[in-house]
Amino acid sequence: MRRIMLALGISLDGYIARPDGSVDFLFMPKDYSMAPFFKTIDAALMGSKTYLAGLRMSGGKINTYGIETYVLSRSLPPGERDGLIFTNAAPHEIAASLRERKGKNIWHMGGGQLAREFLKEDLIDEIHLGIMPKLIGAGIPLFPSGFPERHFNLLESKTYGQGMVFLRYDRSRAKSKPSAKSKLKSKH
Amino acid sequence: MRRIMLALGISLDGYIARPDGSVDFLFMPKDYSMAPFFKTIDAALMGSKTYLAGLRMSGGKINTYGIETYVLSRSLPPGERDGLIFTNAAPHEIAASLRERKGKNIWHMGGGQLAREFLKEDLIDEIHLGIMPKLIGAGIPLFPSGFPERHFNLLESKTYGQGMVFLRYDRSRAKSKPSAKSKLKSKH
Repeated sequence: MRRIMLALGISLDGYIARPDGSVDFLFMPKDYSMAPFFKTIDAALMGSKTYLAGLRMSGGKINTYGIETYVLSRSLPPGERDGLIFTNAAPHEIAASLRERKGKNIWHMGGGQLAREFLKEDLIDEIHLGIMPKLIGAGIPLFPSGFPERHFNLLESKTYGQGMVFLRYDRSRAKSKPSAKSKLKSKH
Repeated sequence: MRRIMLALGISLDGYIARPDGSVDFLFMPKDYSMAPFFKTIDAALMGSKTYLAGLRMSGGKINTYGIETYVLSRSLPPGERDGLIFTNAAPHEIAASLRERKGKNIWHMGGGQLAREFLKEDLIDEIHLGIMPKLIGAGIPLFPSGFPERHFNLLESKTYGQGMVFLRYDRSRAKSKPSAKSKLKSKH
């Protein structure tokens, strides 16, 4: 099944951007490449705030590098334009519709509010974090509060140049599922 | 000089405790020990909320394991009692007074509000984080917003049992310091 991968660079204090949306604190170490990751995905999702920040940063045109890219927004009009697919569908609807079709994995590009919605519905299958060795003191959090506890398995931990730590996790749903035995117990 | 080490276990979403102060989500992997760290310190600092949470958790008596332990509080009466030293001195005063005397390093035990005060005054020399592979969705953040940007060097990155990632950083105050990479130890 196509997996949804929340993959982002963050500050050591957990921010994906400064309060004004800028991401100048993020860097790409020389010995790190996103190319292997890009080979595993063929669709991307982002929230409306990430879209608007992207528009501002790019000067009005977001380059999707040929990846089918969805903007999830309840306020922006749905439809295809500027190389993007705008939709007001709920996270579980988007996930189900993408998973019905064959394809590679799906990149959840953020931001935090869309991550929270996906975590609420338990739709995040992997988390990839590039942790910068910087506290920025304020910003837009990757994990704003307001979703149920979710446990993950650490799959990979790697250090790159300039002190970037890359961590990769997948969702450990099996352990949190009640067994037949505990279901019986919970009936008492 | 005696260094101040902010050392704590956190959830993957950056919390040191749940909203009610409980820390049941933290675990100690079998292959990890705090003993080497304890050998490097002979004093500890905590904020009043961490003290009060500790009192609640311990049933009324905090075990300091023989470490000179300070509770920084503007509201609790200053003085020595119950094996603790209560003080209403400011972070830079405490730091200066401890550094005047010879000794080992100083453990900053948290919480987030005291960490923020120390980061405001740039008094944190090292950060040690044990990152649990769990998003808990709500709680008390280690790094609440409201301090200036602070850059660090990654000194160590190590993976332990059950997916705990241990990261150790020191403050890079001078730009001419050698890069983190040259000092880097990593298991992966």
